[in-house]
Amino acid sequence: MLTPILDGTNRRPLYEQLYRHIRGEIEAGRLKAGTRLPSKRTLAAHLKVSVVTVEGAYDQLLAEGYLRSEPRRGFFVQAEAQPPRPAPPAPAPLQGEPARPAFRWDFSTGGVDTALFPFSTWAKLMRQVLSEQEDRLLSAPHPQGVAELRQAIAAHLYRFRGIQAHPDQIVVGAGSETLIGLLVQLLGRHGAYGVEDPGYAKTHRILTSCGARVEPIPLDRQGLRVEALEARQVRVVHVTPSHHFPLGIIMPVPRRQALLRWAAGGPERYVIEDDYDSEFRFSGRPIPALQSLDGGGRVIYLNTFAKTLAPSLRVSYMVLPPALAERWRREFWFYSSTVPSFEQYALARFMEGGQFERHLNRTRTRYKARREALLAAARDCGLLEAGSFSGGEAGLHLLLWMDRRWSEAELVERAAQAGVGLAPLSACDLSPTPSQRPPALILGYTRIDAREMAPALARLKRAWGF
Amino acid sequence: MLTPILDGTNRRPLYEQLYRHIRGEIEAGRLKAGTRLPSKRTLAAHLKVSVVTVEGAYDQLLAEGYLRSEPRRGFFVQAEAQPPRPAPPAPAPLQGEPARPAFRWDFSTGGVDTALFPFSTWAKLMRQVLSEQEDRLLSAPHPQGVAELRQAIAAHLYRFRGIQAHPDQIVVGAGSETLIGLLVQLLGRHGAYGVEDPGYAKTHRILTSCGARVEPIPLDRQGLRVEALEARQVRVVHVTPSHHFPLGIIMPVPRRQALLRWAAGGPERYVIEDDYDSEFRFSGRPIPALQSLDGGGRVIYLNTFAKTLAPSLRVSYMVLPPALAERWRREFWFYSSTVPSFEQYALARFMEGGQFERHLNRTRTRYKARREALLAAARDCGLLEAGSFSGGEAGLHLLLWMDRRWSEAELVERAAQAGVGLAPLSACDLSPTPSQRPPALILGYTRIDAREMAPALARLKRAWGF
Repeated sequence: MLTPILDGTNRRPLYEQLYRHIRGEIEAGRLKAGTRLPSKRTLAAHLKVSVVTVEGAYDQLLAEGYLRSEPRRGFFVQAEAQPPRPAPPAPAPLQGEPARPAFRWDFSTGGVDTALFPFSTWAKLMRQVLSEQEDRLLSAPHPQGVAELRQAIAAHLYRFRGIQAHPDQIVVGAGSETLIGLLVQLLGRHGAYGVEDPGYAKTHRILTSCGARVEPIPLDRQGLRVEALEARQVRVVHVTPSHHFPLGIIMPVPRRQALLRWAAGGPERYVIEDDYDSEFRFSGRPIPALQSLDGGGRVIYLNTFAKTLAPSLRVSYMVLPPALAERWRREFWFYSSTVPSFEQYALARFMEGGQFERHLNRTRTRYKARREALLAAARDCGLLEAGSFSGGEAGLHLLLWMDRRWSEAELVERAAQAGVGLAPLSACDLSPTPSQRPPALILGYTRIDAREMAPALARLKRAWGF
Repeated sequence: MLTPILDGTNRRPLYEQLYRHIRGEIEAGRLKAGTRLPSKRTLAAHLKVSVVTVEGAYDQLLAEGYLRSEPRRGFFVQAEAQPPRPAPPAPAPLQGEPARPAFRWDFSTGGVDTALFPFSTWAKLMRQVLSEQEDRLLSAPHPQGVAELRQAIAAHLYRFRGIQAHPDQIVVGAGSETLIGLLVQLLGRHGAYGVEDPGYAKTHRILTSCGARVEPIPLDRQGLRVEALEARQVRVVHVTPSHHFPLGIIMPVPRRQALLRWAAGGPERYVIEDDYDSEFRFSGRPIPALQSLDGGGRVIYLNTFAKTLAPSLRVSYMVLPPALAERWRREFWFYSSTVPSFEQYALARFMEGGQFERHLNRTRTRYKARREALLAAARDCGLLEAGSFSGGEAGLHLLLWMDRRWSEAELVERAAQAGVGLAPLSACDLSPTPSQRPPALILGYTRIDAREMAPALARLKRAWGF
C-alpha cells in the first residue's frame, strides 16, 4: 500500500493520488480494520512528499470515515465505511508442509531434553557479552568464526577427543548442513561422495542437492566396507565412526586404519568424520578419532552443539587439515561467518569457564539413567523375548530388532496409534531394504523421562502383542 | 592427550599406561606448564577406568614433579621437570588470510556505523526473550524461520515496500550468501545465471562455487540490459534494481517491466531482486519493487538486516513466489533453519514493537547528514573540478568519477598512503574493464562521521593533487 506510484505530472494533485490509493487498499480489504498507518512524518519521509500532502490525504480519509485518529497513538483503519464487498481471497497457507504428529511418548532422535539446558547460566553469559563487547559484537565476525570460540573448541577437542587442532584449522558454521554444503564447494564435485547405507538420509539429500554425485556404501558389523569405496570410485566419504547412525556401530581401530589407508591411496581423497554424538558414551573406552589417527591430512572432523546444547543454537564446526584450511582461506574467504557474534561469544565463555564440561557431565548422567530405565522396562515387560537391542554403547539412541510377526511399517503404525512415536530402520536405507533383514526400530531416548519408559513400553506391548 | 589407547591386555597396568601417556605429552611440550588437567572423576568417567587408576597415574606424576596439586582447584602441569628439550614446532598460523589494512578514514561499503545500533533496546529484548520463551527457544525453529519473525517481516514489507507476501512465502536464513546457495539448489543448475557487470563480485563467486554457470550481463544507464539475457541463455538473473551496486542506478519502471516480460517469456525463468539497501533512499519517490509489479510468480525478493542493523546478526530473508515456496516445502523441508531462535524472536519483537521503524528513521537521518557532509566537503575542497559523483539518490555509497590524471589503481594507492581507504570501480568488473571508462571510486559513507569528511577529502586533495 504505502508505495504507490505518485506522479507529479498527473492532473490529480499528489494528496489525492495518495488518498485514492489508500482508499483502494481499504476497500479491497488489503488494509484491514484496526491497522495502524505510519505517522504523517514517517510516510512523508518515505514517499518524499511534504507532510502537507500526507495530511491532505489522511484528512480526506478521516472525513470519509476510512480512518480514525487516536490522540498520541496515530491513525487507524476504521471498519469499512462502504457496505462490505467481497474481499479478495486471503493467500492460503501453502501446501507441502509435512504434518508433524505429536506423540505422547516421542522416541525420535532429532531433539534434546530442553529441561537440561543451563538456561540461567546461558542468560547470564548473554547479558555479559551484550554489556561488555558492544563494538566487537557488531562488526562482521571472522569468516571462520570468532577467535575466542575457535580457541575454546580447540582446547575442548584436545582434552576430550585427543584431537590436535590449531584454531586456524577450525571453521564455525550455522549447523552441520551448512558446513557440508561448504565442503562440497571446497572439495569439488568430481568423483563420487560415499555415504553410509543405511545412514543419515539427510546427508545424502544435502550432498545431492549441492550438486555432488552420491554413492551409498554398504556396511558390515565393523562399519563402512572400505573395499566398496574403490569399486564405486568414491573420492570423499562421510562416516560416523564414533557411533554409526542408526546402527550404533563403533568402528574398531583396524577398520579406521583401513579407511585412512584408502584415503592416502589416491589424490584428493577425503574422509568427513561426523562425530555428531561422540560426547555420549556409556561403556567401553574411547576410541581415538579418525582425525587423531590420520597422519596424511585427509580427515575433516565435523561436530555440532545441537546434541550437547540445543538444536536451536545452530552452531557446528569442522576441523580442516592444514592444507585444506589454507585452500579455504585462499578461495572461500569471501564467505561471511554464518553464526551471529552473540552466540559465538556466549558459547566461547560457556566453554572457557568449564560450564560446558559440567553440562556434558550432567546430561550424560541423565541420559544414561534414561537408557537404563528403557532397558529395564524392556526386560520387565517381556519385550526382550520378542526383540533385542543393539548399538547402545554410545550415543543417544538404541536399535530395537524385532521378530517377524509384524513388518516395520506395521510396528511403526501400531505404535503410533498407541501414542508412541518411533522411526523404522528402513527410513535410513538408501538402497532397497534387504528382504532377509528383521524389522528394526530406532529409539532415541532424549525426550522421554526415565519414569515414562515403563508406561511407554506397556503401550507397545499392547500394540505389538508380544 | 586425554584419549590414549588404554589396553587391558597390555602387561603394563592401566594406571602406568595413563601415567606414561601424560608424561609423554608434557615432555613433548603439547601439555604446557600451567594447564589444568581434568579432575580424577571426570577423567575416570571419560576413560571408563576407575578413579583409582587415574589416582595412581596422577600420584606418580605428582611424585615426579610433572604435576602440582592445588587445593580445591585441581591438578596443573608443572614447569617441565626435565631439562627443557626442544619443543615440537607449534602449528604455524596458516597462510592465505588476506591482510586487512586499517585506514584512518574508511570508505569501504561492508559495514555499518555500530554506534547507531540500539544496544540497550536489543539487550532488553534478548533478556525478555530469554526469560519468557524457554521452551520455544530450545526446540529446532521452523525450517523457514519462526512464525513471529516471518509475520513481522511480511507486515514490514507491506507497509514500506508495497510487497504483499504471506509469511508462508518467507524463508529466513543466515545471510544472503546462505540464501543464494539455497536458491541454486531450489532453482537448479540448468541454463545460466546472469549477474550484473559491473556488480557485486561476491555474488558471481557464490553462484559459481555452488555449481551454477554464471554469465555477466552488461548495463546501460537504466541498469541491466535485458536483451542480453536472451542472447546468453540466461534462465535466472540476480539484480539490484533499487540501487545498483556499485553504480547506484535506480532501475526505471519501463526497464523493470521489460525484465518481467523476459521472465514471463520462458519456462522456469526467475529474477532474484536483491534489495540490499533499499531502506536508504534520500531523494526521489520510491519505485515499486519488481516483486510487487510481478504478476507471474517469477520474482524472488531478497533482503538483509546486515545494512539496517548489523552484519554480525547474520539474518537475511527471501520471499518466494507461492509455487516456488511450495516446491521448497516439498523438496527442501529437510533443511534446518540456519538462524538461532534467540535472534529470530528478538528481531521479531524489535519489528513488532515499532523499534525497527524508529531505528531506520534515525539511521537514515544520520547517513543522510554524512552524505551531505561528504558532498559539501567535495565542493569546498575543489574535488568537483576534477571529478563528479553519481548514484547517490539511494543506498549507502556514492560513485566518484575522476578525470584521467591518474589510473584507478594509482588513485587507490595514493589514497591508501594518505590513510584513506576506498575501492576502485574495477573491483566490481566481471569482464575486462572498458578502456574508455574514466577512473571511478566507490565511497561508502557509513563508517565516517560527518565532521571527518572534510579532513578526509583534504587528505585526498594532497594525495591526488587536484
